[in-house]
Amino acid sequence: MENSVLTPKGELALRILIMPSDLNGHGTLFGGAMMSYLDQAGAIVAAQHIKAPLVLKAVEGINFITPCFKSERLSFYGRIVKIGRTSITVELDVYREHMRLEKPIHATTATYVFVQVGQDLESAEIQNKELPTYD
Amino acid sequence: MENSVLTPKGELALRILIMPSDLNGHGTLFGGAMMSYLDQAGAIVAAQHIKAPLVLKAVEGINFITPCFKSERLSFYGRIVKIGRTSITVELDVYREHMRLEKPIHATTATYVFVQVGQDLESAEIQNKELPTYD
Amino acid sequence: MENSVLTPKGELALRILIMPSDLNGHGTLFGGAMMSYLDQAGAIVAAQHIKAPLVLKAVEGINFITPCFKSERLSFYGRIVKIGRTSITVELDVYREHMRLEKPIHATTATYVFVQVGQDLESAEIQNKELPTYD
Amino acid sequence: MENSVLTPKGELALRILIMPSDLNGHGTLFGGAMMSYLDQAGAIVAAQHIKAPLVLKAVEGINFITPCFKSERLSFYGRIVKIGRTSITVELDVYREHMRLEKPIHATTATYVFVQVGQDLESAEIQNKELPTYD
Amino acid sequence: MENSVLTPKGELALRILIMPSDLNGHGTLFGGAMMSYLDQAGAIVAAQHIKAPLVLKAVEGINFITPCFKSERLSFYGRIVKIGRTSITVELDVYREHMRLEKPIHATTATYVFVQVGQDLESAEIQNKELPTYD
Amino acid sequence: MENSVLTPKGELALRILIMPSDLNGHGTLFGGAMMSYLDQAGAIVAAQHIKAPLVLKAVEGINFITPCFKSERLSFYGRIVKIGRTSITVELDVYREHMRLEKPIHATTATYVFVQVGQDLESAEIQNKELPTYD
Repeated sequence: MENSVLTPKGELALRILIMPSDLNGHGTLFGGAMMSYLDQAGAIVAAQHIKAPLVLKAVEGINFITPCFKSERLSFYGRIVKIGRTSITVELDVYREHMRLEKPIHATTATYVFVQVGQDLESAEIQNKELPTYD
Repeated sequence: MENSVLTPKGELALRILIMPSDLNGHGTLFGGAMMSYLDQAGAIVAAQHIKAPLVLKAVEGINFITPCFKSERLSFYGRIVKIGRTSITVELDVYREHMRLEKPIHATTATYVFVQVGQDLESAEIQNKELPTYD
Repeated sequence: MENSVLTPKGELALRILIMPSDLNGHGTLFGGAMMSYLDQAGAIVAAQHIKAPLVLKAVEGINFITPCFKSERLSFYGRIVKIGRTSITVELDVYREHMRLEKPIHATTATYVFVQVGQDLESAEIQNKELPTYD
Repeated sequence: MENSVLTPKGELALRILIMPSDLNGHGTLFGGAMMSYLDQAGAIVAAQHIKAPLVLKAVEGINFITPCFKSERLSFYGRIVKIGRTSITVELDVYREHMRLEKPIHATTATYVFVQVGQDLESAEIQNKELPTYD
Repeated sequence: MENSVLTPKGELALRILIMPSDLNGHGTLFGGAMMSYLDQAGAIVAAQHIKAPLVLKAVEGINFITPCFKSERLSFYGRIVKIGRTSITVELDVYREHMRLEKPIHATTATYVFVQVGQDLESAEIQNKELPTYD
Repeated sequence: MENSVLTPKGELALRILIMPSDLNGHGTLFGGAMMSYLDQAGAIVAAQHIKAPLVLKAVEGINFITPCFKSERLSFYGRIVKIGRTSITVELDVYREHMRLEKPIHATTATYVFVQVGQDLESAEIQNKELPTYD
């Protein structure tokens, strides 16, 4: 993997293997499966920073750059780019890998917005508003 | 359901029941599950119009207005708002219903972009570029 | 869709897309998946009328008229045909649709019986015993 | 298990453990899950006798006698009761067991009808029309 | 099934049908699915003997003798071979069957170790330390 | 995460989030789910080294050190410890993390053995028999 490309992209939030049950009728990864993993990955990145429960509030955009195939491994890198009063925005990059591929291929980018919530699921103010730095 | 509100919102693409396996750790609908159903609903609306296979290319935005709960029924309404050379954009509205709710509640809005593909999964030109009308 | 055929068949309870994970070894919809959706559809129709929790008590019959295939959309129409002291009987019709089919095809019919239950899961008397009318 | 009760009920087709993902909103076994297992159990009993592929054609009836709960084991007993030109009818009994229950409890009865099919999924004549005997 | 081979192998703990969703990229049973069923089967054998809740503590070994295929039925036989202060060891044998196979084929062997637990999930002493006998 | 502890443990093969559907009746991670992820993680580590398809042949041991809970993230580290004529042995360590935990906790260790296979699923000789080094 080219470190120059991946190192600045934030932390490795999730790394999964595409199983047959994740495929759509074309034999490629179902978009819904990809969006579910992005949700999980973004939530992990956000929750580890604010140390509080949160829910997905919005998706600002997802771009499916290439299709993904059975038995490929997907690595989800995320970085917090904005923290508001109650919301936290995470940018995500997904790379697909397989033994038949020479190097990881950039498969998907996305921007997810989460909101901190209390026990009642109402939005709550985020305490730690400092943006983390990624090298 | 107030017809004045829903009638102009396009066709009823999908209607599902939230099962326990769709829930996240908060006991509400997992965002990934909602995004999967939006993918299915949008693809149905688009495919019925262009009569050709397609794949999800991008999500322009999703707004989760209210959380959804176990045993609620979700109705997905979609309308095609733009057809490009190879892409087709669908706007979607999701309403949640339950016997304990007086009327359907607007739960989510989203804009999904699909691309027509050939056998090789390469993008292909859409023949029917006329936008449908919804009353 | 021929309105003369479908209009009198009750309300549209559920509308789902057949995913690869719903298929059996023949590549057609697994009977168990169809019966699960019928259960959900019937329960929705019954619960919206009696406004109370219920459980599936019996199936009086299911007839699988045609097989269903991947990427087809299934529409479940239900109507309440009988209300007893604690039980409510729902007749269901399933239609399959696909962009390659000219019009919806009648795929399955079924009759499901539900029973109203209290917190203890014991059967409870139904208050609203009036049969709904469908046009 | 009282042999006098169970021995004549045919062969043990299937024996499964109820997992959390099989439960409905009441915390009991989802009816759709039970019907799926009955489909599998009946198909096994029928296929082992006619030695040919088959599909589910009809359900003549299902009676849910008692609810079933998490971590209970279900045993499915089936017996062929009728063989027509292309169809084969299987009666099924389900017993639930748990370490906290003194003995197996009769949970469900059902009658499923399968049809032998050829490669094209069209119905085909059953060769072995002799009913098996169960002791 | 050759009784001389199977009779001494303990009790029939579980019997399942391999569904398409259980398959890996080779079209054979996913190892993870087999290990899950072994976990269920061993837990049933152990729990029925000690009449107390337990959790999986260790796997001493699993040997996948032959691959298993779609639509085959798997029978899991288990026997308790050791009971310690808080742990109970179960040996398991899996046989695969299909109408195209003349007789059941030995597919997998495994040894699983469970530990009795209390409400707090802490290990608890097993009361019934007597090994069962299997004929 | 203490690098001194984890750095020598091989490569990060998989990193997943525990979802409600992965839980057993105790509300902890189902052992079968853990074993499935170990299978995936081990297969990735082995396949990336030998650049050839393989199947799970045996498990030499698994030790479940602590239970794992909902919404925890699991990181699977693997290293190849032995390469035979057709088999390759991978040792795996799983660490659980959560925002409420100060640092990752060692949850599970396992040793999985894979076999290289050809198109016919028969075992095939591994070309690259050199053990990788991990720092």
